[in-house]
Amino acid sequence: MTSDPATLDLGSRLTRAQDLARQQGVDAVLVSPGADLRYLTGYDAKPLERLTCLVLTAAGDPVLVVPALEQPAALASPVGASGVSVVAWQETEDPYALVGSLLPAAAAQGTVALDNHMWAEKVLALAAALPRARQVLATPVIGELRMRKTDDEVDALRQAGRAIDRVHSRMGEWLRPGRTEREVGRDIADAIVAEGHVTADFVIVGSGPNGSSPHHELSDRVIERGDPVVVDIGGSLESGYCSDCTRTYVAGGEPPADFAAYYAVLQRAQAEQCEFVRPGVTAQELDAVGRDVITAAGYGEAFLHRTGHGIGLETHEEPYIVYGNHLPLEPGMAFSVEPGIYLAGRHGARIEDIVVCGDDGAERMNHAPRDLVVLEG
Amino acid sequence: MTSDPATLDLGSRLTRAQDLARQQGVDAVLVSPGADLRYLTGYDAKPLERLTCLVLTAAGDPVLVVPALEQPAALASPVGASGVSVVAWQETEDPYALVGSLLPAAAAQGTVALDNHMWAEKVLALAAALPRARQVLATPVIGELRMRKTDDEVDALRQAGRAIDRVHSRMGEWLRPGRTEREVGRDIADAIVAEGHVTADFVIVGSGPNGSSPHHELSDRVIERGDPVVVDIGGSLESGYCSDCTRTYVAGGEPPADFAAYYAVLQRAQAEQCEFVRPGVTAQELDAVGRDVITAAGYGEAFLHRTGHGIGLETHEEPYIVYGNHLPLEPGMAFSVEPGIYLAGRHGARIEDIVVCGDDGAERMNHAPRDLVVLEG
Repeated sequence: MTSDPATLDLGSRLTRAQDLARQQGVDAVLVSPGADLRYLTGYDAKPLERLTCLVLTAAGDPVLVVPALEQPAALASPVGASGVSVVAWQETEDPYALVGSLLPAAAAQGTVALDNHMWAEKVLALAAALPRARQVLATPVIGELRMRKTDDEVDALRQAGRAIDRVHSRMGEWLRPGRTEREVGRDIADAIVAEGHVTADFVIVGSGPNGSSPHHELSDRVIERGDPVVVDIGGSLESGYCSDCTRTYVAGGEPPADFAAYYAVLQRAQAEQCEFVRPGVTAQELDAVGRDVITAAGYGEAFLHRTGHGIGLETHEEPYIVYGNHLPLEPGMAFSVEPGIYLAGRHGARIEDIVVCGDDGAERMNHAPRDLVVLEG
Repeated sequence: MTSDPATLDLGSRLTRAQDLARQQGVDAVLVSPGADLRYLTGYDAKPLERLTCLVLTAAGDPVLVVPALEQPAALASPVGASGVSVVAWQETEDPYALVGSLLPAAAAQGTVALDNHMWAEKVLALAAALPRARQVLATPVIGELRMRKTDDEVDALRQAGRAIDRVHSRMGEWLRPGRTEREVGRDIADAIVAEGHVTADFVIVGSGPNGSSPHHELSDRVIERGDPVVVDIGGSLESGYCSDCTRTYVAGGEPPADFAAYYAVLQRAQAEQCEFVRPGVTAQELDAVGRDVITAAGYGEAFLHRTGHGIGLETHEEPYIVYGNHLPLEPGMAFSVEPGIYLAGRHGARIEDIVVCGDDGAERMNHAPRDLVVLEG
């Protein structure tokens, strides 16, 4: 859906970004290649040393500054048909001076917002080209928009959810005692692409003690019978929207006795969190709901991380479901609900679904079973 | 080779970075995930919203600040055995304040250098945490080191060159009239991995008129008999070192008459540039040597881009072989020599080899034939 400029509705996104910029006293927004640029212009540009930068002033027409070499690619992207001017700079020109020349005096001496992933070399070069401007992050402008998904975006996330669910449903083909995490991980990565993603973005297979490290990826450890195995996987669709889903399996046979006990606690915590999602609940409150269940069962110290992260054109984006974030949830916000319990050096478990906040509660994007699945390969 | 901490010689890299920092009046160098961090610590960290940052003061022991979640991954990487302290921050701590607390007063009020790809959100958060420090780029410190390859690094680039040469040698299996660029590109991407890379980083198949846009990637255009086709491909090895090689083929039959004429000019220009490489020649002079050949033949306007870019742990890094860069070449510098001739809307050609400057001249990392290859599939 999102390669169609009409559906993307770029004009409306740009106008809303300008409105938010004005409301926040931001005179210009500068956006380099990445998810923000793709969101605002449809142009999925590669991040390169040569500057590509959307120049969006609080009033006035947006301009996309591109290296001459990239001009054909930019024009072939949705931005080409969007009415945004594309201005090319030649190989020996100074693109930062060019950006400066496109800003009205008020912006050059005012507040300039930068996309949150802009490279330091660009940030400092823009500071030098605009020595009287104050630099701030553009997250309160662009993040505000990206955080609230439209119906089309939720459709794209549903499609991503179905694709990664299909991979989980095939886990028994690969995850067996006697195979290494790396072998299993390679098969999963192939399946992520085979099931409809254009890229496999990450594959975590944390077996036995490796499951107690939440961000363990893959190792040459041979999976043993009875091992709990945390499988956290995701990819990106052609539309740019991402999937992310974790299930914890048992690789045949009987898991450790205490594992089964805390898995039940975890499952309850995750279910209660998903049921708690509704407009007005804050990110911190949602985090607490699951943490309280886990703490009451005596595993509070073993829930090492926040509950979740937003997802859309990036796997990790606003809103973060974490203590200290008082943001109230709103319809269209999409994020992971992924509590975990980790017993250092022994094993761990995590259950993760992507959910979208609706008017009355959460819609889950993932539907793979959450009961403990013992894979008898 | 470069997963072995001994070969990496991290201690020496860190010490030399500190020496350069002192010489340049830099009080501290802050390095987030990316090629700079991998070069200095061996840790190939994922760039995430949570701060991972090497804190390297001009004197004193280096410290790697990591999110608690990433601590096991950091310790499992070469940095774990290197003697560098790894300090973890918990999910609700402020990592920027932690970085600030690790700096001596002189640095907090002095000059702090940032890796060139650090995200704006980190740059601005560090500026807020260190309001009296002056931020500069770390490129004159880390780039200076990375630009001059050791023998081990040149070995890694040789290995990368051989891997991509094997892909070019198989081009006749895939590149045929009647197939689309995208179909051919998919086969090439698979072969890049099959021939020894861990990732296929880019695949350009520019057939006929698409070859006249230097950074065209892939399209659904069906390749026609007699089309010149620019094939520019590369990937990364397990060691992190990159390949990058361009050849221009003819897809069976007779190419356009003028194409054969300018291809000969291009081949001569590229050969003269490779022969011109030696210590003391500047990047600008090397660029000019090829440009002069092409201009003398009447195609000066059609050579749209600089001659080349450095390569190592990134496909594009210092030194850039471009007008205005007066850097004298030195032994160990590795870069592409890739002149091109592009006739807008008709066709184009580019020949690219990675070369390493030696004491007496260039060693080419690529050996695929540079004579015009007509693929009779």
